[in-house]
Amino acid sequence: MKIALAQINYTIGDIKGNTQKTIDVLNQQRANGADLVVFAEMSVCGYLPNDFLNYKQFIRQCEQAIEEIKAHTQGIACIVGAPEVNPVLQGKDLYNAAYFIENGKISAVVRKGLLPTYDIFDEYRYFEPATDFKCIDFKGHKIALTICEDLWNLGDNPLYTTCPMDELIKEEPDFMINIAASPFDYKQGEQRIFILSQNCHKYQIPLFYVNQVGANTDLIFDGGSLVFDKAGDMVAELSYFKEEVLVFDVEHVKNSIILGEKPVKREPVEQVYNALVMGIRDYFQKSGFKKATLGLSGGIDSAIVCVLAVEALGAENVYPVLLPSKHSSDHSIKDAEDLAKNLGCNYTTLPISDITDAVEETLSDEFKGLELNITEENIQSRTRGLLLMAMSNKLGYVLLNTSNKSESAVGYGTLYGDMCGAIAVIGDCYKTQVYKLAEFINREQEIIPVNTITKAPSAELRPNQKDSDSLPDYDMLDKVLYEYIELQKSAGEIVELGFDEAEVTRVMRLVNNAEFKRFQTAPILRISPKAFGSGRRMPIVAKYSF
Amino acid sequence: MKIALAQINYTIGDIKGNTQKTIDVLNQQRANGADLVVFAEMSVCGYLPNDFLNYKQFIRQCEQAIEEIKAHTQGIACIVGAPEVNPVLQGKDLYNAAYFIENGKISAVVRKGLLPTYDIFDEYRYFEPATDFKCIDFKGHKIALTICEDLWNLGDNPLYTTCPMDELIKEEPDFMINIAASPFDYKQGEQRIFILSQNCHKYQIPLFYVNQVGANTDLIFDGGSLVFDKAGDMVAELSYFKEEVLVFDVEHVKNSIILGEKPVKREPVEQVYNALVMGIRDYFQKSGFKKATLGLSGGIDSAIVCVLAVEALGAENVYPVLLPSKHSSDHSIKDAEDLAKNLGCNYTTLPISDITDAVEETLSDEFKGLELNITEENIQSRTRGLLLMAMSNKLGYVLLNTSNKSESAVGYGTLYGDMCGAIAVIGDCYKTQVYKLAEFINREQEIIPVNTITKAPSAELRPNQKDSDSLPDYDMLDKVLYEYIELQKSAGEIVELGFDEAEVTRVMRLVNNAEFKRFQTAPILRISPKAFGSGRRMPIVAKYSF
Repeated sequence: MKIALAQINYTIGDIKGNTQKTIDVLNQQRANGADLVVFAEMSVCGYLPNDFLNYKQFIRQCEQAIEEIKAHTQGIACIVGAPEVNPVLQGKDLYNAAYFIENGKISAVVRKGLLPTYDIFDEYRYFEPATDFKCIDFKGHKIALTICEDLWNLGDNPLYTTCPMDELIKEEPDFMINIAASPFDYKQGEQRIFILSQNCHKYQIPLFYVNQVGANTDLIFDGGSLVFDKAGDMVAELSYFKEEVLVFDVEHVKNSIILGEKPVKREPVEQVYNALVMGIRDYFQKSGFKKATLGLSGGIDSAIVCVLAVEALGAENVYPVLLPSKHSSDHSIKDAEDLAKNLGCNYTTLPISDITDAVEETLSDEFKGLELNITEENIQSRTRGLLLMAMSNKLGYVLLNTSNKSESAVGYGTLYGDMCGAIAVIGDCYKTQVYKLAEFINREQEIIPVNTITKAPSAELRPNQKDSDSLPDYDMLDKVLYEYIELQKSAGEIVELGFDEAEVTRVMRLVNNAEFKRFQTAPILRISPKAFGSGRRMPIVAKYSF
Repeated sequence: MKIALAQINYTIGDIKGNTQKTIDVLNQQRANGADLVVFAEMSVCGYLPNDFLNYKQFIRQCEQAIEEIKAHTQGIACIVGAPEVNPVLQGKDLYNAAYFIENGKISAVVRKGLLPTYDIFDEYRYFEPATDFKCIDFKGHKIALTICEDLWNLGDNPLYTTCPMDELIKEEPDFMINIAASPFDYKQGEQRIFILSQNCHKYQIPLFYVNQVGANTDLIFDGGSLVFDKAGDMVAELSYFKEEVLVFDVEHVKNSIILGEKPVKREPVEQVYNALVMGIRDYFQKSGFKKATLGLSGGIDSAIVCVLAVEALGAENVYPVLLPSKHSSDHSIKDAEDLAKNLGCNYTTLPISDITDAVEETLSDEFKGLELNITEENIQSRTRGLLLMAMSNKLGYVLLNTSNKSESAVGYGTLYGDMCGAIAVIGDCYKTQVYKLAEFINREQEIIPVNTITKAPSAELRPNQKDSDSLPDYDMLDKVLYEYIELQKSAGEIVELGFDEAEVTRVMRLVNNAEFKRFQTAPILRISPKAFGSGRRMPIVAKYSF
């Protein structure tokens, strides 16, 4: 028997488009001799349509899509993911379901039992957890079909009280199939391989695993669909960050024959780079946009975003703007220009001093006798935001936000100023990770001017300003932030690791006080296990005491 | 036996402050002769601390608070709400629990079974649902103690598969106690009374119900704690929108004696007014702010927000700014000034033309040959945002956002312009509701200038502009929006109600296309059953097909 794994890029809510893609693959794979084509979790509607699922018409459209797909399964079978209406009144209205369709008929519907409801996941908001699990018979094989998280409890996952595969294995299935929508973070790929391999190890049968690929606003699905033999050894790995459909002979997998090339271990920085490029590209393509703008300061953050945008959209579609003030250094302007030239982008320069002068003049009565302070710095930043948004409005460019995670964490950014933008490209990359990206980008030639990388980071909003005037050293800062944000440790626990107590307290106060800013921030391309955004839900008006 | 209902305003995360309030009430009520003091759901930490609950140190602090409260229960008992660590490894780490404490001992812990995970609620993100339910014996009474949602399934709530009271009633309790954190919306008060009364009706025992009061960022708890006799007749109702502690004799309740004054039916508009005032006041008090600013345009939205701010913070703490452009009409300036004078606020005027001229001059090369369009309108709006934020930064005023729900719905607002602000005061009020608020405010005297109310709404961003140039009539618009947003109907279903198909399609396209703007909006004071914000989670990059 031949199984095709279809790793496809879906658009949320584009039921028609997703269905067409599904049918196209079915037709190709029928010709290709496949018996069964496996699509990803929620393939019909994209993952996750969120509150679209509350609209009855949306659910009806998903049901119609299943009907349409059904009509294209003569002589072939497929597994597609979609919401299914819960036939029982009690409990949530829907199941997160996998439809097994063959020869124009739905021969089985499998429902998800473990509903991730943590971090970015909200599945119990919509779905009733399944409690019954049954295998599927197909062409003489017994298949244990599960959906994503259902393989993530090997009996020892403390989040859950049930273990679907423990039920399914009782029927002695020949192999497992798992359909997933498992978003990328720089730790996820390795964890995924480990967990899936452990399942084979535990249940002693092979596994076919299909993941989504493509970005949906902040969430990036990296693909990397997998095949394991019954010993848990990986026998095939699909591409990362691109669509791919591959056919496997079940007998080959059973016999542990390595299929395709031996996978190469990818460096996290390369994966992050690819993820961000896909994040930008899909944001634009799926929204119908082509052209981007951004403020280019000569600093490393905007340089990286510019490089990523050029990679994603092409140099001809990226139009950076230099926005020098009286505090901008000559080298900053030159560094920014050098970068644009290296990338082959057109760029323009809009000095901001006339505007900031007019602002300060307008406010002169109100501010009489008061000292210059952060207000004047914010005025510069907001003037830049205003000009960039005007460029965006008039010329149709989408503004890319260039804030990094370190500054977003400590609130070292101006709301409605440098925090403007449609999508925060590196908003989940700490400053130290930004430097690693620069190194990666420059690995073969100097694309980002070396001066941009080597000079001390500065917002250049007052004379001789350095980030280090206001913030701890980034090496230390990023480590403390990681402990607090990713690992959810308290101040006391972080101090116990050897960090200075006063510094830790200061950093945490900065993070907590910036919650109101992050609430109004652009969506952030998620590349870490704990990004700002829907994965980290902190109160705004609250006392932080831990 | 005497039961005190303690309707208290908690601050999220302020475990120390909340505990002190609890102890103070215990001491007062011991002196007052109460046997049992009932506090609200999550009284120890406020509702809902969200991802604070992921921090172990936070949970430890809650446990320590329980210890401290325990030490103050000599000769008295109390019920407090707090997270409880799940002693079993499998399942979520916490329960949403009620601690029954008497004479220095925890005599029982009751866990919540029905975990709201819809709209603004995320309880299954944190809590394991309880499956066992047991009554509590106290001074010869058997008490069925439940937490909030556990009374919202009378056996026919399609969301849930269990019904806690059906279990508890088997033990033949003498009465029910329910502790809640039930946020206000203009429909909730009536529904709450109905559901609670139905519980008494079904189980034929009295009920004591304690709700939180006070606002936590967007969520407003209205109090209105209740006592019902066994027939389901209300025998007492605590105040709305303020703290109150009242003692009831259980025998009186059993005998259906009406306690206190007969509750008066309040108009929804008055409740909304009170809710918004509390929303502003608590945002400021709990954040440690005193003073507010806002842009006063002469239009009805900013007028209402100014009135609400003055009511919440005092006229001396509200400093409106008039920001006229060359398109501002004389009457707008006069209307704004009249309002400020009626309210007794100081105000200032900052004309924006010098700045917008400088912006347009700076952009003149880039925009050469291109027609004036919405870009120039946005420049005005963003210049106002910039000036207001500068006032905020320099003078310490918190900026109030004045967008209403209708314009927020259709994207009739400028991101980083009039969408600036720390809290969107009327962001959950449709334009037609804004007019009702104005009527209510002017019910005894002209506080809002009549001209502000009677003139056609205009953004005044180009000559003779009217909202009706770009938007359908608000009466129609608001009705369509209500069907789409609150009732989650699809275009087809709304057209079936008799609305024009082209208009419905247009409105829905506007709503869907504005999702990216709403993502970056300020938190919105929630007064409806479906507010923008965490209660409505829609994808940004997505195809809307329903």
